[in-house]
Amino acid sequence: MKVSHIGIAVRSLEEAGINYASLFGDKNSHREIVEEQGVEVLSFPVGDTFIELTAATRDESPIAKFIEKRGEGMHHIAFEVDDLQAELDRLKASGVKLINDTPRKGAHDMLIAFIHPSSFNGVLVELCQRQ
Amino acid sequence: MKVSHIGIAVRSLEEAGINYASLFGDKNSHREIVEEQGVEVLSFPVGDTFIELTAATRDESPIAKFIEKRGEGMHHIAFEVDDLQAELDRLKASGVKLINDTPRKGAHDMLIAFIHPSSFNGVLVELCQRQ
Repeated sequence: MKVSHIGIAVRSLEEAGINYASLFGDKNSHREIVEEQGVEVLSFPVGDTFIELTAATRDESPIAKFIEKRGEGMHHIAFEVDDLQAELDRLKASGVKLINDTPRKGAHDMLIAFIHPSSFNGVLVELCQRQ
Repeated sequence: MKVSHIGIAVRSLEEAGINYASLFGDKNSHREIVEEQGVEVLSFPVGDTFIELTAATRDESPIAKFIEKRGEGMHHIAFEVDDLQAELDRLKASGVKLINDTPRKGAHDMLIAFIHPSSFNGVLVELCQRQ
């Protein structure tokens, strides 16, 4: 298992991108719309993981609701696994509360699923798998 | 630069440790009190970084205040740099608002300094350097 990315909810990718480029530089950043999740992401590679700035593309996006409630800030941590469905089944059997029982499509053409923050002390955990 | 760790504020290391061990296993976890910061940490290695569960050891600890205000959850992201003072000076000169102008002692015998969340869209950023 590795940390695939750390998701940060922001209002504007342009404004946040300038802030984070002061830390990481702006080469190798990657920008992508993920229609199914209602988000646009701007990723900066850092070591073997990514910092993923995430902005809402529509009002009912979970990111828009998060920012409305809590403001900008850390939104989720994504861990990459080899077999997402098997890991979801294993966690569910051990009493972990899943948001998504089955994988769906995420950024970087990966399969993703979210786990409820109540199972990990307030942290929204995403699991993902390369296709 | 790499992600040194992701800090998660929790009430109880025992209770949170059980939750996170269901995801990572519990071998290789590391527990340590950092007196200067008023915290005790339980770290799980994940890829080339760590998930660092952090609990307060005294009421005036920043972690205690964070949990009182926002509940348990993601608290900070720490990035490892080669020369912490040089990086702090560079960021300060570019207008970034530092919490600590100079390094102090953190967990794992590292030098650390925090940057104000207002400079990184609500994210508390820690920079750290191996000694």
